[in-house]
Amino acid sequence: MALSVEKTSSGREYKVKDLSQADFGRLELDLAEVEMPGLMACRAEFGPAQPFKGARISGSLHMTIQTAVLIETLTALGAEVRWCSCNIFSTQDHAAAAIARDSAAVFAWKGETLEEYWWCTERCLDWGEGGGPDLIVDDGGDATLLIHEGVKAEEEFEKSGTVPDPESTDNPEFKIVLTIIRDGLKTDVRRYRKMKERLVGVSEETTTGVKRLYQMQESGALLFPAINVNDSVTKSKFDNLYGCRHSLPDGLMRATDVMIAGKVAVVCGYGDVGKGCAAALKQAGARVIVTEIDPICALQALMEGIQILTLEDVVSDADIFVTTTGNKDIIMVDHMRKMKNNAIVCNIGHFDNEIDMNGLETYPGVKRITIKPQTDRWVFPETKTGIIVLAEGRLMNLGCATGHPSFVMSCSFTNQVIAQLELWNERKSGKYEKKVYVLPKHLDEKVAALHLGKLGAKLTKLTKSQSDYISIPVEGPYKPAAYRY
Amino acid sequence: MALSVEKTSSGREYKVKDLSQADFGRLELDLAEVEMPGLMACRAEFGPAQPFKGARISGSLHMTIQTAVLIETLTALGAEVRWCSCNIFSTQDHAAAAIARDSAAVFAWKGETLEEYWWCTERCLDWGEGGGPDLIVDDGGDATLLIHEGVKAEEEFEKSGTVPDPESTDNPEFKIVLTIIRDGLKTDVRRYRKMKERLVGVSEETTTGVKRLYQMQESGALLFPAINVNDSVTKSKFDNLYGCRHSLPDGLMRATDVMIAGKVAVVCGYGDVGKGCAAALKQAGARVIVTEIDPICALQALMEGIQILTLEDVVSDADIFVTTTGNKDIIMVDHMRKMKNNAIVCNIGHFDNEIDMNGLETYPGVKRITIKPQTDRWVFPETKTGIIVLAEGRLMNLGCATGHPSFVMSCSFTNQVIAQLELWNERKSGKYEKKVYVLPKHLDEKVAALHLGKLGAKLTKLTKSQSDYISIPVEGPYKPAAYRY
Amino acid sequence: MALSVEKTSSGREYKVKDLSQADFGRLELDLAEVEMPGLMACRAEFGPAQPFKGARISGSLHMTIQTAVLIETLTALGAEVRWCSCNIFSTQDHAAAAIARDSAAVFAWKGETLEEYWWCTERCLDWGEGGGPDLIVDDGGDATLLIHEGVKAEEEFEKSGTVPDPESTDNPEFKIVLTIIRDGLKTDVRRYRKMKERLVGVSEETTTGVKRLYQMQESGALLFPAINVNDSVTKSKFDNLYGCRHSLPDGLMRATDVMIAGKVAVVCGYGDVGKGCAAALKQAGARVIVTEIDPICALQALMEGIQILTLEDVVSDADIFVTTTGNKDIIMVDHMRKMKNNAIVCNIGHFDNEIDMNGLETYPGVKRITIKPQTDRWVFPETKTGIIVLAEGRLMNLGCATGHPSFVMSCSFTNQVIAQLELWNERKSGKYEKKVYVLPKHLDEKVAALHLGKLGAKLTKLTKSQSDYISIPVEGPYKPAAYRY
Amino acid sequence: MALSVEKTSSGREYKVKDLSQADFGRLELDLAEVEMPGLMACRAEFGPAQPFKGARISGSLHMTIQTAVLIETLTALGAEVRWCSCNIFSTQDHAAAAIARDSAAVFAWKGETLEEYWWCTERCLDWGEGGGPDLIVDDGGDATLLIHEGVKAEEEFEKSGTVPDPESTDNPEFKIVLTIIRDGLKTDVRRYRKMKERLVGVSEETTTGVKRLYQMQESGALLFPAINVNDSVTKSKFDNLYGCRHSLPDGLMRATDVMIAGKVAVVCGYGDVGKGCAAALKQAGARVIVTEIDPICALQALMEGIQILTLEDVVSDADIFVTTTGNKDIIMVDHMRKMKNNAIVCNIGHFDNEIDMNGLETYPGVKRITIKPQTDRWVFPETKTGIIVLAEGRLMNLGCATGHPSFVMSCSFTNQVIAQLELWNERKSGKYEKKVYVLPKHLDEKVAALHLGKLGAKLTKLTKSQSDYISIPVEGPYKPAAYRY
Repeated sequence: MALSVEKTSSGREYKVKDLSQADFGRLELDLAEVEMPGLMACRAEFGPAQPFKGARISGSLHMTIQTAVLIETLTALGAEVRWCSCNIFSTQDHAAAAIARDSAAVFAWKGETLEEYWWCTERCLDWGEGGGPDLIVDDGGDATLLIHEGVKAEEEFEKSGTVPDPESTDNPEFKIVLTIIRDGLKTDVRRYRKMKERLVGVSEETTTGVKRLYQMQESGALLFPAINVNDSVTKSKFDNLYGCRHSLPDGLMRATDVMIAGKVAVVCGYGDVGKGCAAALKQAGARVIVTEIDPICALQALMEGIQILTLEDVVSDADIFVTTTGNKDIIMVDHMRKMKNNAIVCNIGHFDNEIDMNGLETYPGVKRITIKPQTDRWVFPETKTGIIVLAEGRLMNLGCATGHPSFVMSCSFTNQVIAQLELWNERKSGKYEKKVYVLPKHLDEKVAALHLGKLGAKLTKLTKSQSDYISIPVEGPYKPAAYRY
Repeated sequence: MALSVEKTSSGREYKVKDLSQADFGRLELDLAEVEMPGLMACRAEFGPAQPFKGARISGSLHMTIQTAVLIETLTALGAEVRWCSCNIFSTQDHAAAAIARDSAAVFAWKGETLEEYWWCTERCLDWGEGGGPDLIVDDGGDATLLIHEGVKAEEEFEKSGTVPDPESTDNPEFKIVLTIIRDGLKTDVRRYRKMKERLVGVSEETTTGVKRLYQMQESGALLFPAINVNDSVTKSKFDNLYGCRHSLPDGLMRATDVMIAGKVAVVCGYGDVGKGCAAALKQAGARVIVTEIDPICALQALMEGIQILTLEDVVSDADIFVTTTGNKDIIMVDHMRKMKNNAIVCNIGHFDNEIDMNGLETYPGVKRITIKPQTDRWVFPETKTGIIVLAEGRLMNLGCATGHPSFVMSCSFTNQVIAQLELWNERKSGKYEKKVYVLPKHLDEKVAALHLGKLGAKLTKLTKSQSDYISIPVEGPYKPAAYRY
Repeated sequence: MALSVEKTSSGREYKVKDLSQADFGRLELDLAEVEMPGLMACRAEFGPAQPFKGARISGSLHMTIQTAVLIETLTALGAEVRWCSCNIFSTQDHAAAAIARDSAAVFAWKGETLEEYWWCTERCLDWGEGGGPDLIVDDGGDATLLIHEGVKAEEEFEKSGTVPDPESTDNPEFKIVLTIIRDGLKTDVRRYRKMKERLVGVSEETTTGVKRLYQMQESGALLFPAINVNDSVTKSKFDNLYGCRHSLPDGLMRATDVMIAGKVAVVCGYGDVGKGCAAALKQAGARVIVTEIDPICALQALMEGIQILTLEDVVSDADIFVTTTGNKDIIMVDHMRKMKNNAIVCNIGHFDNEIDMNGLETYPGVKRITIKPQTDRWVFPETKTGIIVLAEGRLMNLGCATGHPSFVMSCSFTNQVIAQLELWNERKSGKYEKKVYVLPKHLDEKVAALHLGKLGAKLTKLTKSQSDYISIPVEGPYKPAAYRY
Repeated sequence: MALSVEKTSSGREYKVKDLSQADFGRLELDLAEVEMPGLMACRAEFGPAQPFKGARISGSLHMTIQTAVLIETLTALGAEVRWCSCNIFSTQDHAAAAIARDSAAVFAWKGETLEEYWWCTERCLDWGEGGGPDLIVDDGGDATLLIHEGVKAEEEFEKSGTVPDPESTDNPEFKIVLTIIRDGLKTDVRRYRKMKERLVGVSEETTTGVKRLYQMQESGALLFPAINVNDSVTKSKFDNLYGCRHSLPDGLMRATDVMIAGKVAVVCGYGDVGKGCAAALKQAGARVIVTEIDPICALQALMEGIQILTLEDVVSDADIFVTTTGNKDIIMVDHMRKMKNNAIVCNIGHFDNEIDMNGLETYPGVKRITIKPQTDRWVFPETKTGIIVLAEGRLMNLGCATGHPSFVMSCSFTNQVIAQLELWNERKSGKYEKKVYVLPKHLDEKVAALHLGKLGAKLTKLTKSQSDYISIPVEGPYKPAAYRY
């Protein structure tokens, strides 16, 4: 791998597929802005004061058109920005091109190798001599992970002279992370610690990344404050649910053109993502079966007329399998062998280990036939029948389609902007310790409010006497923190 | 009012409509038991140990068939029980008869006056010489309110000799409460304080009652521990949502036989109850419009294709109006005057003050035509057109139909049983202070689990390595406390 | 059986349950009129000309509130009317009372025996000395059947002196028909032939009745012209579909209060009625399985995500069974024995022979427990488990609830009024032979148009040039006869 | 335009975009075969007998992957085939390449000009010296039109020496047709008459094409027998309805990535296509409004909770507009001017004249910005706001996505194969006159039956006694011809 950073005429660094797609990207950016009222309202409200003046923001988040509008909202508020994607297949190259040309340093293209992926992540965090970023926008936690692992390695090296050993792990991706850190130690033994010292905080987008953060908080390993954007209602109950309801069938259709009506579809997991997927498949005319470990979520599915079975019960009968669990080892190669010819197997959870891709790839005699990028047919030697695996087991909505639509991402990203502002504004106040925080209810409600006008909604206002009666301020917040929506 | 308590041959007190309906009630109880697996599982698991041996439980909760199964679960676990309804229209007389004859002291009938209602509540709390109950099962908080107001009055009387003045309030219902307490002071100035001293705690069922409890906790007025059963996921996200989705159309159909398809229906409020109502109306073919104060709930409705407008925008165009807010003064007489001829107006929130019944009843020249019990047509003098008001503005699903079906009430009531057990078992441990508690997640999940078998569901089990990977015990709890489902 | 006809003060004959319910019936009639814009428009358009002046109309059709509005539309247009129900359980007694008191001769009550049922049918056709009716409004074809069987018997008797032998049939209902005819022969050997001679024609409402008519047309046995109202689009695609979507859950709820969500429901047959039932159950949260003989209807169900299996496949797993086939012997006692405890078995097809009630009633050792009228639990001796049978296997929506709501019945009944007008107006023109006719498309479209205003709809109008382009008149008809909607 | 026919190494003619895409096309063809059980069953049942031996079939039908499976079914049954698309944007170039290389003469590519389109149509009909095809597979009727117009012109020329004048029409497309015919007359004055003489018949696929055929039958102009495949239930109630329910959102998503949830969508027309579109939009969370001229279809929409308004009522409020009428001049430039910024305007009806593209293109000062192929933003000079027009007003599901999915097209195309077989087998029997026919019910049911196994369905079988009772053969057909499904 010999990747090199390129520079725009103005000297900004980048590495994208094809800068000439910038015009196309800009046209789609223009359309997306109309669909992202929350972000545009942030520009209007905060832009004039330039609150991010002097702030360096690094983002590791799917480099799509919607993310491009987020990036340009951050720059419109005064920030300098560097960006990489958080998934090897999720970049939209025209979006990356437009941003690279016009707004920020971008290192991302559709179809990176894992080595390229982590090279991009490094570039994104590398602000040159002055160290790292002030703020991180994270999705899945890979940027946060790299810094934490880097600091850990540097401290161990300082203490014992030991360098990380890539061979110490079976996980091919973590092998690369350790290699990067090991190689980094050769040039700068304080690289990640300098980053840590500068860092004001991170805002994290996903269920998966947030789980990692809480684990680090628990164990005392968390190195800087974190805002859990995922658990804003206007994120997890919108992006995860309605976003997937939109983008799961979109990905299925673009990848396979298969008719969903009449098919038997298995959704593994019935959290917010699973609920969105199951709703989409059901509405499209599939018969949906859900697998769950949690009896409450299972009972919710049952109340919607959805059958709860185990994967083993249905593996030979279903046509479409979707994993949404956030856990690993959900669909194993032994399951895949028993599936119907041309059963579709895909994942819409953050990481690709929900599907046993390693087991599939190393299955003796298995044959991979690439129909088109991100759509592979794998044929088993015994049966000569095949299954269709989407996006190599990675996020199929971003690998095979364009991810969630702009409007719902506007909700998520407005939370991101508000979280970044909060971290930056309070950087000296001590308000945020090395812990994980969620945004307060009134900001969550504000994000929602910014999206109502676009849809023609008219809210009702409490009267004074109603407000008194239920002890809720006229201007909100309207619900207690634990309210479930 | 000259009500008198009656006694069964075994000497148990009661006052019901017609004890001869007990056989019919028993037949429906038998059916309901099959639909209430959670309660039956409690009987099987806890019955042999008789954990409630010696405990007196007073319940103020709609005296329906489902509640009858709850009562007999409490008695099967060893409790002595007295019961009243928490709504003047919600009693099913055959259920009351069966319980009165076979299991517990019941004071409830369909169509009580407000005076009769509070007389029943008093009887329910009156355990004779020994004072009051050990435990209260509450729904809406009227039993809890009576004790708190009673104690307050007794303390004031002791301090200053002042007795409560019913004329001090405009609220006709609170006038009755004050009268009862004032009259009570004449016979026993420590009546309610003795109750308070004996009381181990209360478990409360509704959004409305829980709100009252938190207000009392806030102000330091809460006299005993309380378990908020409403906010168990298996209560609020099931009973409130799926229960109403079932019982709202049931009430509409029984009361009016009107075709829902093609109609314009306005649902005021899009909380769990409103979501259930809107879903039911939409699925039945109505065009649904929601009114909301909360931008997040409003955005949820929009994502389901439901229009958000104010009541004023649609008052002249809609055919069906349902209030679900938990607030007061939602549909005023001025709205009702502008409605289409035979528009249906009803409430499915806990209290009847969502609809301005007082404004309607006192409107000059208005004419009330009772089509059948709980279905009235009110004709305005100016237009000669009328509106149909259900259950006099009270809970229409209980007033006009039979309330939520057994299966979903089994979820709610299993929470009640578990909460009562928890309070009783920990009565001496000091675990519970004079605060409001929710049940821990693992008990919530247990309630769900008890209801899966009946629906033929098969849960997936975490492997050890999956459990480690996501740091969730194989046996649960599977979600953090703040998870929204 | 010693039934006697009663008379109103004005001398009109009737036999109803309780005339004192007439006021209640009138109140509900007033409400229903607002929901039946098609019938009210007929009164406005045709009433002044009194087109039915001199016409005698006999109707055999569920004596409900909606039918009462139909009857009073016929009388408002000048007809004299006699009426009976076409089902022993479907009469609403307050509707019958109001009509008997105010408008027409009614012979109907809820819960007739089969003997009483056919006595009522006879009374309905008996116009005294002058013979029978000029027109018949039929639902299921029992009035038409009686006349055809009567004529056949009279002709046989004239030819050979043979009288019908009730013992010649196993069918208990047909036994009664033959008895009536045999007894009639004793007093008047031309009774039914006189009826036939006077009769202008019949309009028939149901899939079942229409099938009988076409069979008679085929075999040359049809004695008078018939208009097939069932196959008006505004009947079969509305009443059958949307009517059942409304009234199936209504019947289930009123009869059993059972929660539909989460249950497994089997719908036998996926015609218009089955489609409505399946839609209702699915929307209420049941998992629906359909049984079908017709591959096209089966494929339609599959496209909606509904599984197609045989009854044998699912008989032990399902909670609710509904027959909608129009065929016989769908659910046999051997199926019922294998069902889960308290499985619900009901029929919404016209006749009660879809469910093997005879097999059930005569099953050795079976025990019937009547929970309430029209809701019976049948317990099998081997298993001690029971099933719940609704309305003794007859139309459950009319037996356990109030049938289809007014609005959709307004569509059906407006077709009836138009068909009756057509037959009467053309009685001398020879336009109609002894065949079965459907109403022309423009009248079908007119029925729909009369129902749009109530729902606030605004139609688009073709321009002249658009009309030319697609060769469709601006005023319609808009579709070819074979169009399927 | 200087187009030239190319030849494969085996000498078969073709003109496609890129023959090197044939491998990719073949891979997708392999997948599609698994999803098209009806066509594969035809190959298995009829292939061995080679019934089309000696038959030349010309097809004018969207040259997609699905059509490729149809073509190879025809060749598998012995036919020689030439093919063109019936829409300038609908060809999938990899499908065309695979067929051109492997199976039949293809003249089609995505993005033809109108001149190229008609050149392709000519090539498709041109079988060289021996005249034209024996059979035509038509979609929209353009191949049929060309022959009819050609014959008319030749006859006029023979009679009067007059040649067609392209200037006699305003319609740019018809201008091209006349030019082709005029130029043809120079080389062969019996070209189209020779085709007519050889032609055994046509089978036609679309509502639009069928309408043309019935008009020609009416006026006596029809030159050969035609089978109306569109009105097979398994075509119009599946392809039109469920196909569009799938492919409308697919087209919207691929073209615009816009979130459908929360939007206001207007569907013009509520026939089968409109019903499918409205269902898809509603299920995706849009609020749907329908415009209709037909009161019956309007009432159907209302029963589903869909508002019926005119385009004028909603033109300024809606976000998405879809035309499905089969009529012209539905959305005019005056409507488009009043729309919201970035409103999406598209057509899913057969012809592009539902949207006033001419009015839009010639609007003074309008600016067209091509976002990507088939997605244009048109900006009005007065407001600077734009609308998004898909596929230049042509079939958006084929222009912006890949059309209907394989499974539903298998239903349609199995009808085509059966119709072609029927025409060919009866070519000498005189069974078919110069009229329009539909396939008999039992063949329609057979098509459905061939698609059940793939979806795991199990049909119920009538018993002999049931069959007798309802007078329906055990093996079907199960419904009368007029049954509406």
